Amino acid sequence: MQGDAMTRYVYDFNEGSASQQDLLGGKGANLAEMTNIGLPVPPGFTISTDACRTYLETGEQPEALAGEVDEHLAALEKAMGRTLGDAGDPLLVSVRSGAKFSMPGMMETILNIGLNDDSVQGLATISGSSRFAWDSYRRLLSMFATTVLGVERSVFDEALDALKKSRQAETDLDLTADDFEELVSTSKQLIADHRGQPFPQDPRKQLDLAVLAVFSSWNTDRAKVYRRQERIPDDLGTAVSICSMVFGNLGDDSGTGVCFTRDPASGHQGVYGDYLPNAQGEDVVAGIRNTLPLTALGDRDAASYDELLKIMETLERHYKDMCDIEFTVERGKLWMLQTRVGKRTAGAAFRIAMQLVDEGVIDLDEALRRVTGAQLANLMFPQFDASGEREVIAKGMAASPGAAVGKAAFDSATAVAWAGKGDDVILVRRETNPDDLRGMIAAKGVLTSRGGKTSHAAVVARGMGRTCVVGVEALRVDPKRREVRTPDGAHIDEGDIISIDGSTGEVFLGAVPVTASPVVEALLSAGRPEADLSGSPERGGVQHTLTSESDHADLVDAVIRLMAHADATRRMGVRANADATEDAQRARDFGAEGIGLCRTEHMFLGSRRRLVERVILSHSDEQRDVALQELLPLQRDDFLGIFEVMDGLPVVVRLLDPPLHEFLPDLTELSVKVAVAEALGEPDEDATALLKEVQRHDEQNPMLGMRGVRLGLVVPGLFLLQVRAIAEAAAELKKRGLDPRPEIMVPLVADVTEFSIIREQAEATIAEVGEEVGVDLSFMIGTMIELPRAAMTAREIAEKAEFFSFGTNDMTQTTWGFSRDDVESEFFAHYIDAGIFDVSPFETLDVAGVGRIVSVAAWEGKEARPDLVLGICGEHGGDPASIHFFEKILLDYVSCSPFRVPVARLEAARATLGAAAGNT
Amino acid sequence: MQGDAMTRYVYDFNEGSASQQDLLGGKGANLAEMTNIGLPVPPGFTISTDACRTYLETGEQPEALAGEVDEHLAALEKAMGRTLGDAGDPLLVSVRSGAKFSMPGMMETILNIGLNDDSVQGLATISGSSRFAWDSYRRLLSMFATTVLGVERSVFDEALDALKKSRQAETDLDLTADDFEELVSTSKQLIADHRGQPFPQDPRKQLDLAVLAVFSSWNTDRAKVYRRQERIPDDLGTAVSICSMVFGNLGDDSGTGVCFTRDPASGHQGVYGDYLPNAQGEDVVAGIRNTLPLTALGDRDAASYDELLKIMETLERHYKDMCDIEFTVERGKLWMLQTRVGKRTAGAAFRIAMQLVDEGVIDLDEALRRVTGAQLANLMFPQFDASGEREVIAKGMAASPGAAVGKAAFDSATAVAWAGKGDDVILVRRETNPDDLRGMIAAKGVLTSRGGKTSHAAVVARGMGRTCVVGVEALRVDPKRREVRTPDGAHIDEGDIISIDGSTGEVFLGAVPVTASPVVEALLSAGRPEADLSGSPERGGVQHTLTSESDHADLVDAVIRLMAHADATRRMGVRANADATEDAQRARDFGAEGIGLCRTEHMFLGSRRRLVERVILSHSDEQRDVALQELLPLQRDDFLGIFEVMDGLPVVVRLLDPPLHEFLPDLTELSVKVAVAEALGEPDEDATALLKEVQRHDEQNPMLGMRGVRLGLVVPGLFLLQVRAIAEAAAELKKRGLDPRPEIMVPLVADVTEFSIIREQAEATIAEVGEEVGVDLSFMIGTMIELPRAAMTAREIAEKAEFFSFGTNDMTQTTWGFSRDDVESEFFAHYIDAGIFDVSPFETLDVAGVGRIVSVAAWEGKEARPDLVLGICGEHGGDPASIHFFEKILLDYVSCSPFRVPVARLEAARATLGAAAGNT
Repeated sequence: MQGDAMTRYVYDFNEGSASQQDLLGGKGANLAEMTNIGLPVPPGFTISTDACRTYLETGEQPEALAGEVDEHLAALEKAMGRTLGDAGDPLLVSVRSGAKFSMPGMMETILNIGLNDDSVQGLATISGSSRFAWDSYRRLLSMFATTVLGVERSVFDEALDALKKSRQAETDLDLTADDFEELVSTSKQLIADHRGQPFPQDPRKQLDLAVLAVFSSWNTDRAKVYRRQERIPDDLGTAVSICSMVFGNLGDDSGTGVCFTRDPASGHQGVYGDYLPNAQGEDVVAGIRNTLPLTALGDRDAASYDELLKIMETLERHYKDMCDIEFTVERGKLWMLQTRVGKRTAGAAFRIAMQLVDEGVIDLDEALRRVTGAQLANLMFPQFDASGEREVIAKGMAASPGAAVGKAAFDSATAVAWAGKGDDVILVRRETNPDDLRGMIAAKGVLTSRGGKTSHAAVVARGMGRTCVVGVEALRVDPKRREVRTPDGAHIDEGDIISIDGSTGEVFLGAVPVTASPVVEALLSAGRPEADLSGSPERGGVQHTLTSESDHADLVDAVIRLMAHADATRRMGVRANADATEDAQRARDFGAEGIGLCRTEHMFLGSRRRLVERVILSHSDEQRDVALQELLPLQRDDFLGIFEVMDGLPVVVRLLDPPLHEFLPDLTELSVKVAVAEALGEPDEDATALLKEVQRHDEQNPMLGMRGVRLGLVVPGLFLLQVRAIAEAAAELKKRGLDPRPEIMVPLVADVTEFSIIREQAEATIAEVGEEVGVDLSFMIGTMIELPRAAMTAREIAEKAEFFSFGTNDMTQTTWGFSRDDVESEFFAHYIDAGIFDVSPFETLDVAGVGRIVSVAAWEGKEARPDLVLGICGEHGGDPASIHFFEKILLDYVSCSPFRVPVARLEAARATLGAAAGNT
Repeated sequence: MQGDAMTRYVYDFNEGSASQQDLLGGKGANLAEMTNIGLPVPPGFTISTDACRTYLETGEQPEALAGEVDEHLAALEKAMGRTLGDAGDPLLVSVRSGAKFSMPGMMETILNIGLNDDSVQGLATISGSSRFAWDSYRRLLSMFATTVLGVERSVFDEALDALKKSRQAETDLDLTADDFEELVSTSKQLIADHRGQPFPQDPRKQLDLAVLAVFSSWNTDRAKVYRRQERIPDDLGTAVSICSMVFGNLGDDSGTGVCFTRDPASGHQGVYGDYLPNAQGEDVVAGIRNTLPLTALGDRDAASYDELLKIMETLERHYKDMCDIEFTVERGKLWMLQTRVGKRTAGAAFRIAMQLVDEGVIDLDEALRRVTGAQLANLMFPQFDASGEREVIAKGMAASPGAAVGKAAFDSATAVAWAGKGDDVILVRRETNPDDLRGMIAAKGVLTSRGGKTSHAAVVARGMGRTCVVGVEALRVDPKRREVRTPDGAHIDEGDIISIDGSTGEVFLGAVPVTASPVVEALLSAGRPEADLSGSPERGGVQHTLTSESDHADLVDAVIRLMAHADATRRMGVRANADATEDAQRARDFGAEGIGLCRTEHMFLGSRRRLVERVILSHSDEQRDVALQELLPLQRDDFLGIFEVMDGLPVVVRLLDPPLHEFLPDLTELSVKVAVAEALGEPDEDATALLKEVQRHDEQNPMLGMRGVRLGLVVPGLFLLQVRAIAEAAAELKKRGLDPRPEIMVPLVADVTEFSIIREQAEATIAEVGEEVGVDLSFMIGTMIELPRAAMTAREIAEKAEFFSFGTNDMTQTTWGFSRDDVESEFFAHYIDAGIFDVSPFETLDVAGVGRIVSVAAWEGKEARPDLVLGICGEHGGDPASIHFFEKILLDYVSCSPFRVPVARLEAARATLGAAAGNT
């Protein structure tokens, strides 16, 4: 079986299985699975994704394809005892796309292939219904024209509406056989008018054209956009399933429906679904008529209903998950048209997984595979109180989750001004551009009337963690009049309070009450020592602390039990990034097993900034030492609080890292001040002197300038002040009987010698403090690996450093050569549109570039020092896809913001199990 | 022979060879070599560098060492028929250090080991000269005290001076045996006073202490500094040679001398050397007495003289190179004390190499190995006219070569101001710091009175290519009085013209005439087509174009012939970086085989800057297109000139690369302008509007911002304007019958998709122009590899790109995470002092970090596309050590500044031959 000559492109439904989604697409694989477990599936066959890929690459279908289709079609005709498009008793087929991943943006379906001016007569005779036959034919014409021939759908909708109007018909049901025959004539004429060629009467030609149209639909713009949003690779291609037609619209003993094997919201077992008698599937989707509850089928056709319930049980047992199902009843005979594992909300995912565990259908590992960190994150966002009064005025795309309430501001300057006064603001724009960046930073949420999930607003807001709703087309934003109107007459004046839901895309007038997520409360309680929830996942004690609503209780119980299993399962540790006592406490409550990154620069802002400025600008050792001495007790107190809260757990303290200029006045502002004072004849001598210093230290590219270990090496005493503060804090706590475990981390190391020098100095200082206080002190000393050179020389560095912590933010900046601040707003949206990124590399680790460099360092570091501790403290530490990569390269822990700790715990466990990353 | 137990530490002179310099050091290996070819070397043995390394690592000498020394000493005593320090007839030995590389900064020598209060008597008896014996003893005491015991040399110099004064002696020769005996007493007392312990009388203890002192001398500060300057690894260690003493100071039939086997300046064969009768070697070095020409030995001792001449011939035939030699005649018996391949000036290196070729001693390949690119570069600098009148007022360290003449400016602001008026300036400072950077950039040369070769001034000036002399201690710089004085009474007022020679460290009053290097003239002529000097290296036609001075003619002839052989030898091509017609012409004349980097940003400065500003700031496609249309003909003309000059050779044109802000007004200046105008009540509306735009485009880190391909992707039409200009220029030249070969290079690519998009657009534009003009156009399209991510994904990029050109400047910035502008002045000197760098990674490629990344990309790129062309266009393309690395990773060409092209041609050939890099 080598080479293209042997590739097979067509598979009968009885030849495949559910595991072949790569080859047969989701739909084709599941049809095969159902056929093989003996469920009533109309016979048919699937053309593989291989054929599609060949067609997309070469513009030609594979040579062997036509012959294989001939063969399978002949077999199908034989099995059905009918010939495709036969004038007397035609076999009709449907042609449906089906990719590996469900893609609503692309799905193309053509029903009733095989009908033409002759076979429509045969269908009328065989079915005993002319009306049905002409209705079927006009449906084929409109679907074929829009899908294969590219005529606008509205052309046919308008023709139908005109006909209904002329017949004074309320619905399609009021139209007669003659009416549909007339509509067929009209439709054929419309096709000839719009395409300059008649509808193909040859049934086989219909089939071939339909197949190629499905292939081509893979590359429509909307399909591409959808794939980009959902991170589906562009080179998968789609399969095509050709299925013999069954009809739900052959009278009152026929019908069609959809159902779920259990409640997709709660996970409870039961009968959930809709039924529409005397109809085809597309009628259900189109919502032309109101559906009945599924039990209505039982009232009309008990045998089919009982069979369906049995099949639902079979399917759930077989798939071990909640399935959704499409079926048709043709004159009392039940047919299964599709099944798949059903989609569900984030909350339902947790509840269903644990229901299935409790029912003994799956084990806890499998339950972990079925939920994602993204779903958990979603459950952790504050939510609008569903019970509160709320007026939805419009709905757009949910671009960045959260629930934001604030005053509508129509430009960036206003947003900044109001936020400066302490108001919560929602920035409302038609679309955003880099000018809006300050406004977006100042606002609680961002709302735009244009743009999609990859628009500037969406990309930037997600990057910043701002709640964002985009593409709310119903909003007419008029920045000149400073108002927003909707077609329904609602309007927002600038300054009005509005609320936006970044998880649903809803926009509300007024302030909708926000409630903290019950999941967050439960996770925090679970983390507190008094809760003591470790051990058996069977305990249900948590429920007592929760809201009385059973829905919430079920959800919270499911989450807590799954998290307990996640903790028991995962290989990697989870630490948090925190640099204040409260954050550290929160992180610990959320289950963090230490602080992976305690930044010290934030401790140096505010009123202490002036002291740091003095350290940097000092002209003598004495001046500098005085300033350092003033900083020491303040810095020591910072550490005391954090070490105390994290008693017994490691706290990685990073020595001062940020660019020099963050501690100095802004050059431009100061220049203006000095120049204006001079121009007005009142020169400001202090400012002038300071300006000279600031100019002296001005850097063109502060990110690439004097920072991190460079500053530590060039400004004597600065790092040692910090080391001393750490050592003194640890000594004090040790004397109080606690167990502080600081680890000292040197930032921005590129060469082992930079590290060795600091290490030597730090060890001397620690020993000194230990002697002064009379306590035995010894801390791990390691380094950030955040520059490509550090990674390339990891072997040498590992010989001197006890741990590596990958700073993937900086590593992304240097590996790609762009700074987050400067480019994220400027061209990331452009790059995502152009397909260069599918997601910002600052959000999800770029495995091909940054990941490769990180893994080289991890591997070679471990080789040089087998007990080297490997962690990651960039923001990727809380990103699901990235966490799975870190598991692959065997890091020891990830560290992320406290709020992401539960997500990281869950995804670390899922990664251990080898589950898919599930960023969506 | 495994493990330390089997390591042998001591080798008799008859056991080693010249190739064992790693183990025996240069001196020991050459003593062994001479012994083995039968030359008269006083017997002795060498302790290996292994022993030294063990001692330096552990602080203990290897256990086996003492035993081995016992053994070899016993054998030596047996061979000499004397016992070390024997009271009656003592064997005396010298102890000398000898590392693999000659290290004048470390060399320690102790003569006359074995003398003590008893054996001095025996020596007197045996030698028949009490005076000689006591003189020898007092020499041992002073050398031992200063070298082994750490007493200041001046202590003994003063004692000797005092003695001479009291005896009214002019020189040592006027002192008597009694005088020296008294000096021995004084010296012993001085040792006891200064060290609190007596001089060790035990000869073996003297020997052991002397050996350990030599070991330790490896790590003195001056040795470390010297190694850092000469890029000698710190972990080699030194060997120690113990040699039986012979005496040149036993009377008139004794003497000592140094000689060369040929003229170290011209390379001519003959007798060159100095002789000092009745003296020891150190007397020659110390310059206490005037030496005689070597022929004086012939007059006094014809036999020894003839033997010496024969030995010189033997040595040169043996070493196949000019040797320098130290010898001693002891009572008519000639002894060889040392030989080594002789040091020579840059010019002599070329001349001697070709002399040896012409004499049939070596072949041309070997001649190439014997010269370096650094030597050639030295010969290419403008030189002060030696025949002109010149007043040397002081001499310091030659820190950065060149000959600079200008007005002395004593601070940076003055230098900038004068240079702004068009004056040539020499910046004169005690030492420089980052504040002086602007002044250094503005000046032609930099002169400091303090600091060494790794001082701020030296490092920064070398980096910028400024002529620089540092550490001229005789200059008293008084910036307040704005004058410089020397102890000799010379003085320089600010504004006086001075001249500094960066190759010799000399400082001159007034303007010394500068002459262009004759080598440059010859290289340029050789490159011009009319010269047609290709082919046989034997042709001597070049000489006709040269100065009549035969020295110059010899030199020029040697250089030109070696360069011809280099071109025939090297594997790598050499291209030049040039973006103007004149530069391209010069590059071609210098032998460049194409332009490896034609930057286009310089073409966009000056008056065109305003047009580019309009392109960037345009608010509509129309505005932008108008500006682009105005740029098109200007840009086309730029290319016309270069392509014409480089007819038939490739010209790699890099599309626009620099950061956005380089085309926009300075934010701070503009802010000041607007604010001042406003403060004065005369607001400037245009400036205010412009400021808003500049603020909008302001970047925190322009290096990491919107530049290169990013700009090309986001600003429509910008790159295509350039591609069109290239295509139109090429089309026009093709029509004129020329053969233009532009290659289009996309800068700052991080991901293959960035490149693919530009490539597709560019190909369309080229095809369009081809059709418009009716000429067949097809150019290679490739990319810079200057970001780590591009290197990590080289495989993917190589599938789309036809060539890679490594931009090692940017790659160094991103790999290390620092920008050249910001850090080179700020902390490089500090880093070099701390041993983190031995040379700026912007000067010589950092092989461990940047080099590793480059080689991954080179390797994987070639794997993906075997005909991928690999070049390098960063400044490392002209750096010898880096060129050797590029040969190792098999790049196809290097590209460097036109002036460095000959250096690159030479070093590429040497790299092909596997010669040592020879940066010094």
